[in-house]
Amino acid sequence: MELLKKRIVKDGRVIGDDILKVDMFLNHQIDVELLQEIGKEFKRRFSDSEITKILTIEASGIGIACIAAQYFSVPVVFAKKGTHRNVGNNVYSADVYSFTKDVTTTITVSKDYIQKEDKILIIDDFLANGAACAGLIEIINQAEAQLEGVGIVIEKGFQPGRQALESAGVRVESLAVIKSMGGGTLTFE
Amino acid sequence: MELLKKRIVKDGRVIGDDILKVDMFLNHQIDVELLQEIGKEFKRRFSDSEITKILTIEASGIGIACIAAQYFSVPVVFAKKGTHRNVGNNVYSADVYSFTKDVTTTITVSKDYIQKEDKILIIDDFLANGAACAGLIEIINQAEAQLEGVGIVIEKGFQPGRQALESAGVRVESLAVIKSMGGGTLTFE
Repeated sequence: MELLKKRIVKDGRVIGDDILKVDMFLNHQIDVELLQEIGKEFKRRFSDSEITKILTIEASGIGIACIAAQYFSVPVVFAKKGTHRNVGNNVYSADVYSFTKDVTTTITVSKDYIQKEDKILIIDDFLANGAACAGLIEIINQAEAQLEGVGIVIEKGFQPGRQALESAGVRVESLAVIKSMGGGTLTFE
Repeated sequence: MELLKKRIVKDGRVIGDDILKVDMFLNHQIDVELLQEIGKEFKRRFSDSEITKILTIEASGIGIACIAAQYFSVPVVFAKKGTHRNVGNNVYSADVYSFTKDVTTTITVSKDYIQKEDKILIIDDFLANGAACAGLIEIINQAEAQLEGVGIVIEKGFQPGRQALESAGVRVESLAVIKSMGGGTLTFE
């Protein structure tokens, strides 16, 4: 997606060998017009899938998923991190290890909001090691729902997330795939 | 906003005297079409204000703010909770006490994303004691930006949030104001 790649080059910041900060437009400040184009592109790529629900994870996936959901005319469900008093015990859950923060977080989704009949599109901002996606897929499996695919805004193509997902038979659509990063710059695949 | 009130009556759940669960359509599963109507209503109510940015707080404010921002044609900035490795020290911050969880959380916004020239609309899902709003206003004040008002989806009118904000000269627009809750039911003002 050229518009997105141009924006990453213009406003993204490469830190070290594996951190790309895009909080200028994607996950702290949010350019909603860019998100609309991202949402349309997800809809175009998954136009052959019958999607009933979009699943994401708090916090930075929520805005992307909500804007995209408008083009699919489906609700969004976001997995919550940690234990929440108001969620109760009626939940599906999975553990997600964050390589960035070196902590394992439990993510939960209420059993009320994923049904066996659901055909689910996962949407998230980044794909690196695929740990967050694996957790969301575990939850979809617990609900015996159907995973239609994974839509990612920015994929770190030099990390093993895509391979892990595709080995499990999961369709992955990334709007920008980074081939390599370092020295303050990056190249796309 | 009648559509919202009807939805609260239909799908909300009153627990005890002060908890209203609306995670069926607002803050776990998200009805994006309802959010569009909510966004249009915020735009209608603040049509006389020149807004340059919408500020909210993770996680449940993000979807509401992003959908609403489309009708204002402005970016969203969301305050992050806790300390984040990727945010750095270049932040405005405030402490927010959560009555629900009985914990104090530090919220932060990068100094890069609020400018002195900004005219800011705060949007959030609930207004109860006003602690989250007070934290966001403290951040706006640190940035010397201008607060245009606060847009709330559901206000607990029997709690002191509105009074605290209005005493400080802040304009508050709530789309549904709950007068009282208890015994599994609620009444609107």
